[in-house]
This record gives sequence, C-alpha cells and structure tokens, in this order.
Amino acid sequence: MKILVINGPNMQLLGHRKAEFYGVQTLPEIETGLQATAAELGVEISFFQSNHEGGICDAIAEAMSDGTDGIIINPAAYTHTSIAIHDALEAALIPAIEVHMSNIQARDDYRKQSMTASVCIAQICGLGADVYEWALRALVRNLNRQTKTTSRKS
Amino acid sequence: MKILVINGPNMQLLGHRKAEFYGVQTLPEIETGLQATAAELGVEISFFQSNHEGGICDAIAEAMSDGTDGIIINPAAYTHTSIAIHDALEAALIPAIEVHMSNIQARDDYRKQSMTASVCIAQICGLGADVYEWALRALVRNLNRQTKTTSRKS
Amino acid sequence: MKILVINGPNMQLLGHRKAEFYGVQTLPEIETGLQATAAELGVEISFFQSNHEGGICDAIAEAMSDGTDGIIINPAAYTHTSIAIHDALEAALIPAIEVHMSNIQARDDYRKQSMTASVCIAQICGLGADVYEWALRALVRNLNRQTKTTSRKS
Amino acid sequence: MKILVINGPNMQLLGHRKAEFYGVQTLPEIETGLQATAAELGVEISFFQSNHEGGICDAIAEAMSDGTDGIIINPAAYTHTSIAIHDALEAALIPAIEVHMSNIQARDDYRKQSMTASVCIAQICGLGADVYEWALRALVRNLNRQTKTTSRKS
Amino acid sequence: MKILVINGPNMQLLGHRKAEFYGVQTLPEIETGLQATAAELGVEISFFQSNHEGGICDAIAEAMSDGTDGIIINPAAYTHTSIAIHDALEAALIPAIEVHMSNIQARDDYRKQSMTASVCIAQICGLGADVYEWALRALVRNLNRQTKTTSRKS
Amino acid sequence: MKILVINGPNMQLLGHRKAEFYGVQTLPEIETGLQATAAELGVEISFFQSNHEGGICDAIAEAMSDGTDGIIINPAAYTHTSIAIHDALEAALIPAIEVHMSNIQARDDYRKQSMTASVCIAQICGLGADVYEWALRALVRNLNRQTKTTSRKS
Amino acid sequence: MKILVINGPNMQLLGHRKAEFYGVQTLPEIETGLQATAAELGVEISFFQSNHEGGICDAIAEAMSDGTDGIIINPAAYTHTSIAIHDALEAALIPAIEVHMSNIQARDDYRKQSMTASVCIAQICGLGADVYEWALRALVRNLNRQTKTTSRKS
Amino acid sequence: MKILVINGPNMQLLGHRKAEFYGVQTLPEIETGLQATAAELGVEISFFQSNHEGGICDAIAEAMSDGTDGIIINPAAYTHTSIAIHDALEAALIPAIEVHMSNIQARDDYRKQSMTASVCIAQICGLGADVYEWALRALVRNLNRQTKTTSRKS
Amino acid sequence: MKILVINGPNMQLLGHRKAEFYGVQTLPEIETGLQATAAELGVEISFFQSNHEGGICDAIAEAMSDGTDGIIINPAAYTHTSIAIHDALEAALIPAIEVHMSNIQARDDYRKQSMTASVCIAQICGLGADVYEWALRALVRNLNRQTKTTSRKS
Amino acid sequence: MKILVINGPNMQLLGHRKAEFYGVQTLPEIETGLQATAAELGVEISFFQSNHEGGICDAIAEAMSDGTDGIIINPAAYTHTSIAIHDALEAALIPAIEVHMSNIQARDDYRKQSMTASVCIAQICGLGADVYEWALRALVRNLNRQTKTTSRKS
Amino acid sequence: MKILVINGPNMQLLGHRKAEFYGVQTLPEIETGLQATAAELGVEISFFQSNHEGGICDAIAEAMSDGTDGIIINPAAYTHTSIAIHDALEAALIPAIEVHMSNIQARDDYRKQSMTASVCIAQICGLGADVYEWALRALVRNLNRQTKTTSRKS
Amino acid sequence: MKILVINGPNMQLLGHRKAEFYGVQTLPEIETGLQATAAELGVEISFFQSNHEGGICDAIAEAMSDGTDGIIINPAAYTHTSIAIHDALEAALIPAIEVHMSNIQARDDYRKQSMTASVCIAQICGLGADVYEWALRALVRNLNRQTKTTSRKS
Repeated sequence: MKILVINGPNMQLLGHRKAEFYGVQTLPEIETGLQATAAELGVEISFFQSNHEGGICDAIAEAMSDGTDGIIINPAAYTHTSIAIHDALEAALIPAIEVHMSNIQARDDYRKQSMTASVCIAQICGLGADVYEWALRALVRNLNRQTKTTSRKS
Repeated sequence: MKILVINGPNMQLLGHRKAEFYGVQTLPEIETGLQATAAELGVEISFFQSNHEGGICDAIAEAMSDGTDGIIINPAAYTHTSIAIHDALEAALIPAIEVHMSNIQARDDYRKQSMTASVCIAQICGLGADVYEWALRALVRNLNRQTKTTSRKS
Repeated sequence: MKILVINGPNMQLLGHRKAEFYGVQTLPEIETGLQATAAELGVEISFFQSNHEGGICDAIAEAMSDGTDGIIINPAAYTHTSIAIHDALEAALIPAIEVHMSNIQARDDYRKQSMTASVCIAQICGLGADVYEWALRALVRNLNRQTKTTSRKS
Repeated sequence: MKILVINGPNMQLLGHRKAEFYGVQTLPEIETGLQATAAELGVEISFFQSNHEGGICDAIAEAMSDGTDGIIINPAAYTHTSIAIHDALEAALIPAIEVHMSNIQARDDYRKQSMTASVCIAQICGLGADVYEWALRALVRNLNRQTKTTSRKS
Repeated sequence: MKILVINGPNMQLLGHRKAEFYGVQTLPEIETGLQATAAELGVEISFFQSNHEGGICDAIAEAMSDGTDGIIINPAAYTHTSIAIHDALEAALIPAIEVHMSNIQARDDYRKQSMTASVCIAQICGLGADVYEWALRALVRNLNRQTKTTSRKS
Repeated sequence: MKILVINGPNMQLLGHRKAEFYGVQTLPEIETGLQATAAELGVEISFFQSNHEGGICDAIAEAMSDGTDGIIINPAAYTHTSIAIHDALEAALIPAIEVHMSNIQARDDYRKQSMTASVCIAQICGLGADVYEWALRALVRNLNRQTKTTSRKS
Repeated sequence: MKILVINGPNMQLLGHRKAEFYGVQTLPEIETGLQATAAELGVEISFFQSNHEGGICDAIAEAMSDGTDGIIINPAAYTHTSIAIHDALEAALIPAIEVHMSNIQARDDYRKQSMTASVCIAQICGLGADVYEWALRALVRNLNRQTKTTSRKS
Repeated sequence: MKILVINGPNMQLLGHRKAEFYGVQTLPEIETGLQATAAELGVEISFFQSNHEGGICDAIAEAMSDGTDGIIINPAAYTHTSIAIHDALEAALIPAIEVHMSNIQARDDYRKQSMTASVCIAQICGLGADVYEWALRALVRNLNRQTKTTSRKS
Repeated sequence: MKILVINGPNMQLLGHRKAEFYGVQTLPEIETGLQATAAELGVEISFFQSNHEGGICDAIAEAMSDGTDGIIINPAAYTHTSIAIHDALEAALIPAIEVHMSNIQARDDYRKQSMTASVCIAQICGLGADVYEWALRALVRNLNRQTKTTSRKS
Repeated sequence: MKILVINGPNMQLLGHRKAEFYGVQTLPEIETGLQATAAELGVEISFFQSNHEGGICDAIAEAMSDGTDGIIINPAAYTHTSIAIHDALEAALIPAIEVHMSNIQARDDYRKQSMTASVCIAQICGLGADVYEWALRALVRNLNRQTKTTSRKS
Repeated sequence: MKILVINGPNMQLLGHRKAEFYGVQTLPEIETGLQATAAELGVEISFFQSNHEGGICDAIAEAMSDGTDGIIINPAAYTHTSIAIHDALEAALIPAIEVHMSNIQARDDYRKQSMTASVCIAQICGLGADVYEWALRALVRNLNRQTKTTSRKS
Repeated sequence: MKILVINGPNMQLLGHRKAEFYGVQTLPEIETGLQATAAELGVEISFFQSNHEGGICDAIAEAMSDGTDGIIINPAAYTHTSIAIHDALEAALIPAIEVHMSNIQARDDYRKQSMTASVCIAQICGLGADVYEWALRALVRNLNRQTKTTSRKS
C-alpha cells in the first residue's frame, strides 16, 4: 500500500513561522515521524511539497499512474481558492484526507471554507503536526476496510 | 482522566437513517466500541445524547464541576447555528474535539460552517463512526502532553 | 391509520395573541375540530405541542416507533431556522405536511423561508385554523393513494 | 359564486413533462376534475391558461368586471419574478389562493420565493394536481364565511 | 412634432386601485388632459397601454419608423426588471422621459431601482397624474432646444 | 407662498465642472432664472447652498419657523448617504421635491439610491438646470391644490 | 407590582467565565442585589434562568397568567437568533427590557443584532451586573407612569 | 431533419442598432444566409422572432409537436431573467444551442448570467452573425451523431 | 466631576417631531431635568447640540482638554454612519454612554447598527427622555467606582 | 497564419476522468484531430498544456513574440479566478476564443463566471471535444476577415 | 508652485491618540517638517485641517481659485464614505495624492475602501508621518514633469 | 543592506501594454533606474520577476535565508487573490512595501482589494514607474530608523 503526503505553499517554512499555530517541528522532522508510523502500519510512504498550485496538480496526476493508494494533503493557502487542486483530486479517484495543523475554523473568515475538502473523504484539523499521523492511521484503516473504487464518496 | 462524549439532535437515530452517510451502527454500538478504546487507553468515558440545545449546555456546565478532562462533541444540527453551545464550550475551559461522521464540506452549504468549532481544539469529520475513536485517541494524547489550562487555544 | 399533529413554540397561546393573524380559536378548540374530521375520515389522531425544539425532535423520533402514518406540523418560529427538526423529519420517513395559519409570505422577510418544508410533501399556509383540516384531508387522501415508502419525495 | 382558475407558462404541457414532479394528468383532465368539484360545491368555474405574463394580467383585470368571486392561480415560472401579476392581484381585490403542484421549497433556490403569494390569502403546494381541488374547497369555504371586501388581507 | 405616451401593466386600472397612491382619475381621463396640453404646445400626441412586456417593445420599435420624436413612458411593474424594454429604448434613439405617479423611492425596496431609467433622459415621479403633463412640457422644451440626434445622452 | 431652494455640496461649482452632466450655467444664473419663474407664479423664493450636511439640516429647521411653504432640494452628494437630512425633512413637515440635474440612474451604482427621496413628495432628475423650474412649477401647483398638512405623504 | 427577571443560556456560569466581560459576581449574588433594589422600590421580584430556548418561552407564557407586570430579560446567546422568544414576548403583552452585561456592539458581528429587542420597550447593555438594576429602576418607573396596555410600543 | 431558429426581443431591429456590437446585417439577411447553410447541410430550417416571452414559450411548445429536431435560440434580453423559457426548453426535450452575437461576458454584469443556457447543450457567443451559422453546423453534427433522446444533457 | 451631554442632528427639534417616538418634551426641558439630577448627584453638567458631524468631533476633542470626566452622547442620525465620531470618541479616552430615546432595534434596518457604540462603555435606548437620566446615573456610578484610565474598555 | 491552442490544469487527464462531461478522447487524440482541421484550413497550429497559471501566462507572452495570430484557450479551473491570465490575454493583443468542453452554465455556480472571457472575442462551450474545432474554424474565418489590430474588441 | 495639505477629522489630535498607529508627532510638528521639505524643493506650502466634511469641500473649492497646483489630502474618517469630497476633488482638476499614516489595509474592513482615492493620482499609506513627505516629493516631481491639465487621470 | 524587488505576473511585459496605465518604460529600464537609486542610497539591490504564484513564494522564502533586509513587491494580478503570497510575506518577517504603478482604486472593483497589503508595512500606488523609487527610498529610511525585528507591524 502506497501513501503520498502532499504539503502546499510555505509548509517548507514549518518550524520557522507562527510557532503558536504550527509548533516548532520542521517539515523534515514531521516526515521522519510519519515514516516511522508508516513502517509500523506496514505501508510505503512518500512526500511532496510545493509552493506551486500547478505543481500540486502535477503530483496528484502522477499519483494516478504510479499506484498510489491514498493521499494525505495539506493544501495550505490553496485550500481556500484552488479549483485546480479540487479538479485534480476529483479526477484522481484516490481516497484523500485533508489536514490542517491549525484549527482553520478559529482563524480569518477566508480560511474557514475549503474548496478541496468536498472531494476528500475526511478533514482533520487543529492538532498540530499530529494531524498527519492521525490522517495516516485513519486512511490506512479505511483502505484496508474498503476496495479503492468504493472507498471514495462520489 | 475523564472524557465526556456528547451527541446532539437525532444522533439517537443512528443506524436508522441515511446509511450512506452514517453507516449501519447504532449509537449504543458506537459507544460500546468507544468504551473498549477508553479501556485500552486507561481513561474513564461517559456518554450523553440530547435533542435539546439547552440540554447540551447543561451537560457541558455539569462537566465543569464533575472533573471532566476532555470533551468529544458531535453537535449535529446545532453545529451550524448554536451560539449557546459555543458559549458553553468557551466557558467550560475543557479541551474539546468536534466530530462529524459525514464530510460536512461535501453537503449542503449551510452545513459547511460551524459555530462551535472555533472554541474546540480540533475538528475531525468524514470517517463515519471512526471519528469518535480518532478523536478519543487524539484528545487523550493531547491531554497527556499538556497541562489542562494550557492545552486549550484561547 | 395514525396521524400526529405537532405544534411548535407559542402555539399554546392561540386565541390569546394577534387575533388578526390567528383568529380567536384556542389550540384545544382547534384540536377538538380536528378530532371530528379525523373521525369522519376514519383515522386516529393525536396531538403534541412544545416550545422546545428538542421536544419536537423527540416527538418525531417517537412517531417512528409507534406506527404513526402521517404528520401535520406547524413548526412556528422554528420553521425558519431549525436544522434539527429538518433532520428529524428527514430521518422519520413519515409523510408530513407543513402548515401555517398566517400567510408567511406576507410577513417579515425572515418568516418567508422554511428550513423544514423541503422535507415535507406539502405546505399549506394562510387559511387560519382551517390549514389543519385541509392538511388532514390531503394527508389522508395521499396516504390512501400511496404506499408509505413511496409517498414521500426523497 | 364564480371562481376563475389561472395557469401560467408551460402548464399546458402538463402530462408531457417531468412526471415525477407533476404527475401524468394533462391540464384538460385536471380541469374536468375541478369542474366536478365545482358542481359538487355549487359554484361556477372557468379556466384560463397563458404563457404570457401580460395575458395573465389581462385575465385578472377582466375578472374584476365580470363578477368573479375568487381566483385560484398557479403563476408557474412567473411566481418568482412577476411584479406585474402581483400588482394585478393586488388591484383586483378578489380573494386568491396560489397553488403549486410541486413542493417549491424542495427545488432550486430561485423557486423558493414568491412575488405573488403576498397578495393572495393562502398558498398550497406540493400535492400534485390535488392542490387545485383543495384550493377550490378552501376558497369556497372562505368566500361563504366572509364578505368579499373583508375576506382579503390588506 | 409627435409624442408617444406608453403605459405599462395594470395602468388601465387607474382610478380603480390604490387611490392613495394613484388618485381617482382613470387613464382615459388623464389622456384627455394630456391631449389638451399637447394642443397648447402644438404637438401631436398618441397613447399606448399594454400589460405585455413584448407589446411595449413592439410599440417602441414601431415608433422608430413612424416618425415619433419623443416618448413618455411609465413602465409600471416592468420598470424594475425589464431588460427588453431597456434594450428597445436604447435602440430606438428617441428621447424618452420615465414617469411614475407614486414616489417609487417611498415604496418597497424592489420598486426603488429602475432598469429602464438609465436609457431615458429624465425621470419624474411622485406627483400623481401630473407627472405626465410635466414630462410632456419638459420633453417638448428639450426637443425644441436640441436636435434629435444630440438630445439623447448616449 | 414661500419656497426655499436648497443646494448641497459642490453645487456652487456649477458651470465650472463636468459640463456634459451639468451644463454651463452657474448657480447664480440658475437662481436668477428661478426668481423670474417665481415672480411669474406669484410666489416668494429664497436660496441656500452649503457644502455642510449640518448646514443643510440647520436650513431645513429654520424653514420650519420662518413660514416656508415648500422646499426644492438638490442634496447632491449627500443624497445617497444622509440620514440627517432625511430626518430633518421628515421632521419639517414641509412638502419637498428632490431634484438632480443629471440622470442619477445612468451614473455610478452608489448614486442610484436616495436616502432623502422617501421623505419628499416627488423626485425629478436628468433635465439639467430645468429640473429646478419644473420642480418649482409642480410644487406651487401642489401647494395651491392641497392644504399644507395634507399635501405630504406620511 | 410583579417583576420577572429571565436569564438565558450559560448565565448560571456568571462569576466563572470571562471575568473581563462579566465581572466576578455569581448569578445568585446579582439576584440578591436585585432583591434589595426591588424592596427599596416596593415591588415583588422573581427569577428564572434556563439554558433552554423553549424553557424561556414557557416562562414568558406563564408570566402572562400569573400577573407579572414587567419582564427584565437577558436572552444571552438566544438574543441573536431566537424567533421563538421574540414571538413569546410579542404575545405576552408585558413590558420588557432587554439587558446585556457586556457591550454587545463591541463584540463579534453576530452578537450585534438582536432578534428580541424589537419587541421590548428598551435595551440596556455594557454596564456589567448593573444593567439589571438600571433596568429594574427604569421598568418600575415606566410601569408607574403608564397603564400596562398603553405602556408597550406596538 | 428540422431546425427552428428563435430570436428574442429587439432582434428584429438588427442592422439598426449598436452596430459595433451587432454588425450591419438585418435579421432577414442573416436568415437568408442560414437558409443557404441549411441547404448545404441538407436540413430544413424555419425562423421565429418575438418580443414576447410568452410567444417564445408558445413557439417552443409548438416545436414539440411539429417534429422539430433541434433549436437555435438567441433569447436576447430574456436570457438573463426568463424562468418561463428555461422551463419551456427543459420540457421540450429538443436539443438546443444558445447563441449571442456579442460577447455577453464583456458587457454589463447583469448580462453575464444566463437563466436559459443550463437547459441547452451548448452556448456560443461573441462572433456576430456567425454565431447562428456555427450553431447550425454544430447542432446538425450533434444530431447526426446522437439519437434525439440521448443527445440532451438531463 | 464634569459630564458633557452631546446631542446630534435634529435633536434641537425634540418636542416638535414624531411625538410617538420622542415624547413632547423639548431639548431645553430635558436639559433642565438633567441639571437637577446632576445637582442631586453632585456633578457638574454641560450640554452641546449640533447638526454638524464635524462640530460633534470638535466638542469631543475640546472635552479632552477641559477636564470632562464622562460623556453622554446621542449621535442621532450620525450613529449609523459616522466613522469620524467613532474615531473622536476612541481618541478621547473619556468614558461615554450612547443613548437613543426610541428603541432603534424596532425601526428601519439601517438604524439598527451603530458605528459609535463600540467605543462607548454602554448603550441605553428606548425609554424616551429618561435615557439621559439613566445614563447620567450609570455613568456617575461607574466613574465613582473606577479610575478614569481603567474605566473604559479598550 | 499561426494558431496556438492552450489547455489549462488537468486537461492532460482528458479521457481518464468524468467521461459523461468530457468524452473518452485523450488530449493528444483531440490535438491530432485539430492538426487535420488546421491542415484543411491551411493554417499552422501548435499546442500547449500546463497545470501552472504562471506557465499559461508565460505561453501567452511568448506568443506575442513568435508571430502567433490567434489563440484558442481552455483555461479550465483557472477560468473562474485567474486575473493573471486575464491580464496576459489583454496585453497580448492576439484574438482569442475561450472554449469549454462541458456546458459550464449547467454546473456548480462558481464555474458559471469567467474571469478570462471578457478579453476574448468569443466563448464556445458544451459540445465536448468539438469546441476546439468550431473555435478553430471561427477564429480562422475571423482572422481572414479582419486585420489583427482591429479584430479584437478593446 | 503652490501645494495645499489637507487633513481630515481628528488629525488635530495627532500625538495624543493611538501612538502605535500614528507615532508621537503632533500635527504642527509634522507641518513644520513639511515646510522644510517644501523649502528644499522650492515650492510654497499651506495647511488646512478640519473635522467638517463640508469644510474640506470648501477648502478644495477655494484651492481652485487661489492658484493651488497640487493637493496632499488625508481625508481620515471621511476617506471611506465621503462622496462630497470625492466630487470636490473631481471638480477641482488639481492633481492630488491621498495619504494615510497607518496601513489602512491592515485595519477594520470598513477602512480598506476609499471613496476618494479614485479621483487622486496616487495613494500612499502606512509609513507614519513620512507619508506626507513622500507625497510632497512625488507630487512636486509629477507637477514638474507634466502640465497641470494633462497630469490628472480623467 | 540588501533590498529585493519582486514583480508579479505580466510585469515582464511593461512597455508593451496599456501605456496609459503603465508608461513606456520596460522592466529592465526601470530596474536600471532603481540600481542607480540604490547606489545613491548605498544599498545592495536585486530583482526577481515571475508569472508563477509559487515562484514568488519561493523567492520570498529564499530571501529569509540570504540576508535580505527589505522587500519591494508588486504582486500584480496576484495582489487581489493570493493567500499564498500573503502567508509567505507574513512568515518572512522582512519589512515589505507593496507597490502598484497604476492607481488600483480607480480601476475594476476586483482590483481595489489587496490580500497582500495587510502584511506589508506600506502601500504606494498610482505614480507609474516612480512607485519603485519612492518605495526604495521609504524602505531604506525605515530600515535605517528601526531595527529589523521591530520595524514590522505584527
């Protein structure tokens, strides 16, 4: 089972900005932790980060042909406006969970809506770096329970 | 450590309605499962369900004085409009996680916004009955990691 | 055939308030009249009034298990805001007709929209206490004509 | 007592379109049924259908001078936008009941509001072709009960 | 010099409705008065009334080819919504003055905006039947002062 | 009979700005013309111009005690926002006509609505400096026709 | 003279939450203070607190039959959304003053509007616990000054 | 194969108005050109123009019974507001292409939305009189490719 | 202790307008009454009324340098739009109470919001001329209780 | 004559997603078909696809210097939000036609508006892959008919 | 070359309020600094401050006749609402630069829009008292570069 | 001291498009001018232009680690929508000034709001290519005056 973790714009700055929202861990440190959880769960995991909306679409499209079984995505700033990522996820037919480290419901109004969550199977937000781990555990359980084609809400 | 699980209006009907959104488990069956997880995690757990907005406020207020350490709440229909539950949670100063079994971002527009999430530490939605278990695991980890007074975002 | 008539907040005050909108009949007087019509139509009828949104949800849920065949509901003030009653009616799978004694389209803007009508089979408003009788006659005719599971628009 | 039944645009297509909303009866078949009810109630009934907003205004104006006592109107598509029909009904000072065969509260948002209902005494919707019969019975009862000048809400 | 006076829907009912807004004069009585003013001013005047939006467009188009020099138009209910009359007036290249007998700024919100006034040279409202006379005097003065092609604001 | 003509902000610049909207006449030239018309009609006329919202309120209040019978007001920029002038006119109980030299319906959206017209008996716009003369003639005719206390729509 | 003081959801928590907004007094302490003021004014006073919207409607309805002369109500969270309490107060025909301890105009946007104030005779907010005393003094003075049926703005 | 070309209000004025938007061709000239294209494609073509919203509904309804296979419609001003034409097209079950000679996306905001396009299979705008020819060619190709009942998006 | 009472536009007309909203007392009469209350409370009081938004700003600025301890302000029409008075009050750092004689929540929608209340410590409305007295008593009590610099909510 | 065909995000997935909207052809297959049409018309054609908004701007800028005479663009998801592509097209001064394979007027509300169409000469949507061919034929005819500098609406 | 610096409401309080936004300099101190810069640039400079919207209009009108070549204006609170100052600046035909000491884009939403900037040639905000100096330098450079009549965007 | 100048989409086209808005200088010509000013001010300057939103985020992130002291950014089309650039600037903790060559307040409504200005210290717009020079001078003065960590508004 292959899982792809996608992080959107400015997530490469984790550990450098707004510690009260995002904690002090860097993205590589978070990814190392996820590697361990993936090993525990017996799944293969890979990581992608880009500041480019188009780059994230490219990565999702590539996941369609490389056998990726599930996606964990933190679209960051693109969460709230990107129809392109929405369309890519919808086309990909790969179960995805959207995560946010901060509680987006407690921030600016324009951060409360998600263009992308409606084509994911779930959304987890507000637990800091833990959201990646919980999303990974939940996604793997879901994939084990369901066949890929039926696991996604149409 | 004491955890309270609150379910809002019509959740007592689980297993009887809209199976494609909520699955076939009844609320007692879900609670039985959570009891097992709580035992595994070594925490005490109790359950409350009410169709009454005021009843849910009463329950939260009571939790303030009975030593409850954390709350998992599915406010259901009241999620989108209840300032009263928002105020109760804000006053309670008990870390809470909001859960929804369905992906509320993929339903009617008026179900996309939450009046209550901004005073919770996290929101998890879209994984069916599993949201309760993931919330329980996440909440317990958070409580273990932080002192109660600092674990909640002001 | 069992019919349940539900009246929402402040309807127990009928005959005491805003006579130009609601006439001079009290709620018990209206119920007595409906009892007569029910007898004429050969159906069983019962009545419920509550000022509590949750109480109305409770009543609808109870109707699911006591063999109620049809519901006539005047949600009064909750008409315009209650997602909880909407969800209860939607879950109940019992054909319902929404009634209003006044013509809600000729009153305040916030009274023109109904959160609950979309899960009822019909809406009748503006004929004073007669709306209950016409709803009863229409509901019974509909129930006689259709099987319960197909009589409701999904 | 003279009753006029007005049907708006595309209602002449009844029985040919969207059977799940409007049933399989044609407009002439519905009118034949209403003729029978009118006979039972001892009132005179006539029918008018037009796709023209102006034609409907003409018909209402004509009703003012030919002794019509009550109007049943299904303004169809013009329900949601016609100030002209609103003004005609308001000027006519003839009690009117607005009907819709489908439950307009369960359709597109732009079909939920009525420009014309505020100058009618009542609105009945969602019972298929039966709405005409119930409106006829209710209108006749109202006319019998009240004098014309006082029977209409100003 | 030829002037055309156009009246929109329900204006044929003048003298019969809402006397506090429109006075007791009938439309023919108003037209007789305008005939006298036209004679005084030495201009030819003709009248058109229709409940049909399309009929008003037809009349404006006809005015383009019959040598009409100016238009006085009371679009009544169509004032607020008719793009078709807007387009007809814009295409006609005949100076027009929009009139309303009542003060539309003191009525329902939806009567405050005009779709048609922007392609007229002026708007006069609130003086009862006098608006027609003042518009006639103003229009004739304007036509006398300017050549037709330059008298209209593009 | 005493008439007061009030001009709002920047109207003292007439003849200096935006000739295509306002023509080349200066405000004193327009006032001289109105003086002549007033003489013709046998009424007394006075003039007031201020760039100050409060100054216009002061002038209206003063008109209440100096026997002014009618007001012609061009509130200019304050038309669209001034609740204070609205309240002054409403309190004054002196019939007023609002005028605008340009067709405000053909300009910026924020110039289409009037806060003040609803407490005037009429609005005339789009005829350049002539609007003052037509307003004067119409106001005098109205005052002659009606007693002061009943000439104003409450 | 009988006065009823109604407090809405979460007001039982006073003294425990958000001290900067509400001070350190508990609700019983405030009520004791009001008791003293009532004694000073020679009026009878009683208290009601509920987290239930329906419970508050019940209390208002009961006040109609137990001879209550005036109501002081802090609807708290229900202030902003409750049509039911609005309708109850409107039906009760008992003069009411709405109070808020905090200045609701200086808080979240959704707390700035009141559904209930329009059927009260006055609103006092922003003075902490003192609002109850000032409301009591003002209400008693008003009741003394006017007969009950005329003291309320319709 | 029979094609009906419908033109809405003021299109009979083509060649007379706003040449920069619509070119210098008259409607009959355009229809002559379309006749030639129809001959080339081997299909029968007929034309209808009306300023009446109801007239257009009539024409669509008639097309249902006279064997029309496809419709090209330029609803002109009714594009943006007509629910009646929307309903007629939806009921007709005849594939239709909506055309506009000007680029409606580059004009007034209220011309950017179409009430009717959602029940057409395609929309072509901005190419002047050529839109009719391209629509004709596209419609005939589509009709040849598909059976009538499946060629239309439900 | 020095208190300044500021009244906004048209308040000098009190006793002359809209008696049902504002009673029959003139502003000087109200001020005389307040003088008596001030004497009773042992505070110095002065009065300012202006129709000018800028004049009110001037008065507030002057209060900053003349030792004024508290402000009672009825901004009247400027309540709903004046950012300038908002800024003046915010800069003044003098505790202020906003008053309205009528219940602004029961009037036009545009009168329900206050631009100025958010920088006052309290708002009292709906008790007629009494609002000034209650505000005075409340303000003096607050000033006595708190030091000036801490008595105002930032 | 050189034509550039630009496809936006996720269009490289054609043939893999949402067949009911986009058909089964892949993008290379569509481009092969267009190559044939270009050959028939005697024009040179080239293709560009990118998921990157900036990449599409780059391509448009490049077209300015490589002698491209016309552009066919399907901005896909960027249609609805991209000011950058709007600005690039506007700067390019190359006639462009916007195409969409699906009927965007029959999909989600946020897909109904186009940020980019206003700077194109035309928009064609709803005919599947045929939109590219019709746009190519229409663009070439337009380019042949007009000189480049005058062929574009400013 | 003559430059006029206009400051709007409450700017006379500079140095006394909200130091974190506006710094500690008083307005006279800022003006002294500008005097020095003006001397350096060889231009004449004068200053005007008023809390009165009408006073600012008066000053702009006066500048038209006293040979002022350029205006620097900080309309303060009137920035966001004043159509009167907008009209005065537009009529004045004197190049103006709008300045704000704070970054208005980082404050309340209602402070983000400017009614007046659209008739200025530039806007500078967020640099504290320096905005006046930069505006002065930029304005003088612009005036030197261009003739007055062409230097302003129409 | 190191300054980075960032230009957004289509700015590489300067000198080629919309000369009335942007002048005739190319971007390299502007940069050459800025190089001279930087030399005069004794600061190091570098330039970056990209059509890619992600590319701009990359550049800002890189500036965090290469010792850049200040940023001048013209986000062009991304100004109005980019949360990603907002977040990058906010994270960078480098003082930035936003510039626009045209007066964005005098253009389309959607160009009036800035997503990015709120995290800059200042905004300068409307002076053509000069905005870069003024921003450079202002930024260097600010940096000289303040320490980097305190020079930015949090």
